[in-house]
Amino acid sequence: MGAALALAERARGRTAPNPNVGCVIVQPAPAKAGGRVVGRGWTQPGGRPHAEAMALAQAGEAARGATAYTTLEPCAHESPRGPACTDSLIAAGVARVVIALGDPDPRTDGQGIGRLRAAGIDVITDIRADAARRSMAGFLTRREQERPHVTLKLATSLDGCIALANGTSRWITGPRARTHAHVERSRHEAILVGRGTLAADDPKLDVRVPGLEDRAPRRILLSTRPEPGWEQIGAPEAIASLTGVDHLLVEGGAQAAASFLRADFVDRLLLYRAPILLGGKRGLADLGLADLDSAHGRWGLIDARMLGSDQIEVYERVKG
Amino acid sequence: MGAALALAERARGRTAPNPNVGCVIVQPAPAKAGGRVVGRGWTQPGGRPHAEAMALAQAGEAARGATAYTTLEPCAHESPRGPACTDSLIAAGVARVVIALGDPDPRTDGQGIGRLRAAGIDVITDIRADAARRSMAGFLTRREQERPHVTLKLATSLDGCIALANGTSRWITGPRARTHAHVERSRHEAILVGRGTLAADDPKLDVRVPGLEDRAPRRILLSTRPEPGWEQIGAPEAIASLTGVDHLLVEGGAQAAASFLRADFVDRLLLYRAPILLGGKRGLADLGLADLDSAHGRWGLIDARMLGSDQIEVYERVKG
Ligand SMILES: NC(=O)c1ccc[n+]([C@@H]2O[C@H](COP(=O)([O-])OP(=O)(O)OC[C@H]3O[C@@H](n4cnc5c(N)ncnc54)[C@H](OP(=O)(O)O)[C@@H]3O)[C@@H](O)[C@H]2O)c1
Ligand SMILES: NC(=O)c1ccc[n+]([C@@H]2O[C@H](COP(=O)([O-])OP(=O)(O)OC[C@H]3O[C@@H](n4cnc5c(N)ncnc54)[C@H](OP(=O)(O)O)[C@@H]3O)[C@@H](O)[C@H]2O)c1
Repeated sequence: MGAALALAERARGRTAPNPNVGCVIVQPAPAKAGGRVVGRGWTQPGGRPHAEAMALAQAGEAARGATAYTTLEPCAHESPRGPACTDSLIAAGVARVVIALGDPDPRTDGQGIGRLRAAGIDVITDIRADAARRSMAGFLTRREQERPHVTLKLATSLDGCIALANGTSRWITGPRARTHAHVERSRHEAILVGRGTLAADDPKLDVRVPGLEDRAPRRILLSTRPEPGWEQIGAPEAIASLTGVDHLLVEGGAQAAASFLRADFVDRLLLYRAPILLGGKRGLADLGLADLDSAHGRWGLIDARMLGSDQIEVYERVKG
Repeated sequence: MGAALALAERARGRTAPNPNVGCVIVQPAPAKAGGRVVGRGWTQPGGRPHAEAMALAQAGEAARGATAYTTLEPCAHESPRGPACTDSLIAAGVARVVIALGDPDPRTDGQGIGRLRAAGIDVITDIRADAARRSMAGFLTRREQERPHVTLKLATSLDGCIALANGTSRWITGPRARTHAHVERSRHEAILVGRGTLAADDPKLDVRVPGLEDRAPRRILLSTRPEPGWEQIGAPEAIASLTGVDHLLVEGGAQAAASFLRADFVDRLLLYRAPILLGGKRGLADLGLADLDSAHGRWGLIDARMLGSDQIEVYERVKG
């Protein structure tokens, strides 16, 4: 399932409004532990072919008797763009299907699992469901909250500054952190900045990573007035109507970031921290909190690593 | 040597202008690895008895043939307050002395080692010298830079704020981080705050940890004018003349912290970070940096841990 989740990650930011799914088909090796991978698939740009269809095509006859690992319940609905994956898995003769997460789509929602079982296939569910939920956060947030999943990125000094007092912000973090941030961009359908950042930095917002140059997301400006050459929204609430955007990366500045936090639209924080002190421009404008109690209990640390001498930390909004 | 360093830590902040030293005497166990600790000592408040004298008194006859581990070269000078530790070690008949760091005091500086060797004692030096240097940072900074060793403490949100926009700062961090900060206080001869912090918080600056209540350091105010009931200095430079203070803890606020950083008097950063976002008052006032290059390369991370849901990070000023 780890391999299937990694494949799903390749598709993140390219499949909206469809989920990014990963699938691995393994032919068990009778003699020893483990097995042989005979097919690998991930949702293709635009949503089709599905991950299972790609993996089955790769496996061919080798799918017979094999186990398919898939990060989302195989679809149960036919479409003009292809048959239901459930039917394809049955037709290919797989013996077992391991599923991370059930598909909330009402056209599938349990029916995929039911049909596989009715065909005599052994089905195991809820394997690494949390990781799958994280992996398909865009698709799920769009369904559950009718807006894109929002990641707020901040690249700061130890004292939380995003620029010197004189506005200089290049560079706070080192090359490894910056490359990481570019790969993150490629996993989002769109990036947003506030007008202050446009004016100060005229940022390219492209993906300067070898092999990913063509993955630059749509660029969106947060501003009360339009700007030639930019797609623009007038308030954070407008993200709900951004069609084709299930993952939105908010890259600042301080006011734009604070606007999204005040609206409680930020699902994930991506903090890059350089081991420097600046005493400069702070990363977040006023959040308007009345007391400290209302600040606590909202963010859970889910990952922390070094990137050269910088740190990266990932937090998720604690729900409920 | 690890045990000797831990004992030295007990004396930190209580021995100025003398070094805080730790000493462990071990009687080798012939049959198996390891040995039996027969004496433990650390510099007593005010500087005497020395760590070696305390450990030798505890060991008594058991010191004969034993190994003494000491974090600093034993002193070679007699004083009205006691004999030279070198002579005491020789008289006690120890077989071996293991030393972390040579004593820069010209009355000793190699002479302790020389005399021990001349008496036929096996002497090993430079064992965990870096840890010993860190442990005696106050004594060494006073000798080398003619001022106390300065630790700057900041308790911030993830975005580097030390208070809400309305001034509320209790509490940003949780109870474990606050207890840790109180233990740190007990390891310093003095704590300093700026007048803004006095006015906003009227801080007690005591040590509210069971068993350490009597270890509250001297309280010093940074301000251009005196304040009844407070020891006051008018500028960071004045720390050089604070007699009896080899370790100074600067606890804020934003202007006081920035003043010490601008003067390049901060040797160690103690950062407590709570998993919250505030968008409030920043932790550091303007450092007046002209470019980002001058901010880089100054701080090295030496420790990072979780304290409940908060993080603590310790950085040291990179020298040279
Ligand atoms: N280190 C980093 O990670 C990083 C990243 C980005 C930026 N930066 C730095 O951040 C600084 C810029 O930050 P900033 O706070 O001045 O500007 P900003 O947040 O980029 O932009 C502020 C502008 O965004 C628009 N805006 C904000 N909230 C809005 C809302 N709720 N509805 C509609 N429009 C809204 C407004 O534009 P209108 O006035 O046009 O309506 C506002 O003037 C620059 O120095 C830049 O270098 C650093
Ligand atoms: N979370 C934390 O760790 C923490 C810790 C401490 C404080 N705080 C918060 O920090 C805020 C206070 O910070 P602040 O920046 O307003 O005040 P501050 O730094 O505590 O005090 C500023 C005052 O200190 C004196 N001062 C500063 N630099 C000086 C220099 N170079 N020479 C002589 N005097 C100097 C001046 O006093 P005179 O005007 O009298 O000359 C100045 O007005 C409060 O909200 C407090 O709650 C938070």
